[in-house]
Amino acid sequence: MLTAHADLSLALDVIGIFAFAVSGGLVGVRARFDLFGIAVLAWITGLGGGIIRDVLLGDVPPRGIHDPWYLGTVLAASVAAVLAQPMLTDLSRRRPRLRVQLIGRAVKYLDAVGLAVFAVSGALKALAWGAPPLACILVGAVTAVGGGALRDVLAGQVPEVLRREVYAVPALIGATVVVVAASMDALTSVVAWAAVVLVLGIRVAAILLDLQVPTAPRQGASP
Amino acid sequence: MLTAHADLSLALDVIGIFAFAVSGGLVGVRARFDLFGIAVLAWITGLGGGIIRDVLLGDVPPRGIHDPWYLGTVLAASVAAVLAQPMLTDLSRRRPRLRVQLIGRAVKYLDAVGLAVFAVSGALKALAWGAPPLACILVGAVTAVGGGALRDVLAGQVPEVLRREVYAVPALIGATVVVVAASMDALTSVVAWAAVVLVLGIRVAAILLDLQVPTAPRQGASP
Amino acid sequence: MLTAHADLSLALDVIGIFAFAVSGGLVGVRARFDLFGIAVLAWITGLGGGIIRDVLLGDVPPRGIHDPWYLGTVLAASVAAVLAQPMLTDLSRRRPRLRVQLIGRAVKYLDAVGLAVFAVSGALKALAWGAPPLACILVGAVTAVGGGALRDVLAGQVPEVLRREVYAVPALIGATVVVVAASMDALTSVVAWAAVVLVLGIRVAAILLDLQVPTAPRQGASP
Repeated sequence: MLTAHADLSLALDVIGIFAFAVSGGLVGVRARFDLFGIAVLAWITGLGGGIIRDVLLGDVPPRGIHDPWYLGTVLAASVAAVLAQPMLTDLSRRRPRLRVQLIGRAVKYLDAVGLAVFAVSGALKALAWGAPPLACILVGAVTAVGGGALRDVLAGQVPEVLRREVYAVPALIGATVVVVAASMDALTSVVAWAAVVLVLGIRVAAILLDLQVPTAPRQGASP
Repeated sequence: MLTAHADLSLALDVIGIFAFAVSGGLVGVRARFDLFGIAVLAWITGLGGGIIRDVLLGDVPPRGIHDPWYLGTVLAASVAAVLAQPMLTDLSRRRPRLRVQLIGRAVKYLDAVGLAVFAVSGALKALAWGAPPLACILVGAVTAVGGGALRDVLAGQVPEVLRREVYAVPALIGATVVVVAASMDALTSVVAWAAVVLVLGIRVAAILLDLQVPTAPRQGASP
Repeated sequence: MLTAHADLSLALDVIGIFAFAVSGGLVGVRARFDLFGIAVLAWITGLGGGIIRDVLLGDVPPRGIHDPWYLGTVLAASVAAVLAQPMLTDLSRRRPRLRVQLIGRAVKYLDAVGLAVFAVSGALKALAWGAPPLACILVGAVTAVGGGALRDVLAGQVPEVLRREVYAVPALIGATVVVVAASMDALTSVVAWAAVVLVLGIRVAAILLDLQVPTAPRQGASP
């Protein structure tokens, strides 16, 4: 399975690394870090989830610190974020509040893409390494939310995964689809991509509908 | 030793995971996270210390992401925290400040329980894996404080272990008792539970007496 | 190589652990943690980078939790920080703003020393463990910035590595020098120490010149 899915895993990881790295760079721009700070946050966000995954599975040194594909992807994404910085700053000079809104929205959608591909690639890698089914599901979820959580903690924010919206659940669903398909010997590339689309669909629907999980009312209604 | 203490370790871990997971859920309630945020924080707090322990010892994938006992325990605790949320919210509507006080106190005592059992179970596992004595003591301490520290950082607080009260020291004492007993070939279940009671006793005494370690005076007295 | 550079690595690590641990302790003093909080932050800052390095390389349990040299060094540094606390507090009573300035400056220079020696020792250890060249460079950089980043996150600050100044780049340069020298079979103790001096020189120059990487202007100039 390791060989059969190697290309698929690489493709998923490259997409996820790029999406998360750009999101990290944009959060760095919004936080007004300098160019190196933006680049470092892009690297940590892009590679963080995969490094946590590899450490949990015992694949050390993690691919994220030596695979040329991974490093090339994160380098490209961090350069893109750094190049976008003056444009975004220029924009914000003319329309002060637009920059924050625009970045916030872009980060949400980039996160959704990264979440979807990393949930699937994390579960695939855990299966390939022979981890038990429950572990495969949780490794998928941790891979999916890890980079974004690191980014938010480092930028001084409470991680998205703890805040208002449907976030960890689609990752768990996507990883579960992969693991169940594998246990039924039905795990093909089509199934894996379908799982990606499923996670992405749920997460994007949540963003669009502002579909929030019930939370405590801030102001008590009449008793 | 690994076999002999397997039941003991499992019992300690289940207690610790439950206590820490409920504490994480309550911190999530206090921070007004939604239900999934509460559940995620409960999982990270309950399993975090043990996952750090297993990564430090090289036991990957960590038991915290595949052992059915561990996952069942953390699931039960997170459900308990989610179910407690409306009650706590209802309470806080009638008595606004009580909720925060109540949660703060519950978190302190749950932390004390988790600290005590994880200090001992961490040291036991490190011994079983053949780590050197000093490493066993520090692994015990890190297991004990790790989950709570993750919880606090993710919720945007400075971790308890760095703040005002006696916290890391009882964990170090408990782990040391276990390691010394093992080196004297006197490590029985009774000794291990006695170490748990010792850590718990010191920590609870510290909470009750508000026994604070000396800190710098905020306002200089007359010279 | 492992044997040949063992003494060198130990010397570098001891210096780095001491410098970072004192910096952690001082940040704890500035944040008005109690004596145990100061000690815990000193330990985490001193040992954090090396523990991350060892986990990434698969050297578990990490040396930072059992090597007597490492533990003795961090113990000495944390005691020094704890002993310095009353003096610094006394100073700040007479000259309120001096304490914060003084600590801020000391932390910057201690960080520069730790950064320089850990970048080189991290790369050396990765080479000794047979990691690929790119991984050796990144392991060096992560070792160098890891402890300080943990310290800042735990103390509730955005890590230095993301903020205004030249920080990660000298670490990458120093690790690269070591890896290139090794690939040319020219890695001697002299080269390693020269790499340390190079990193330290760049970082200190950056502090002295307040050499900041370009960042977005806070106030738009006239269009």
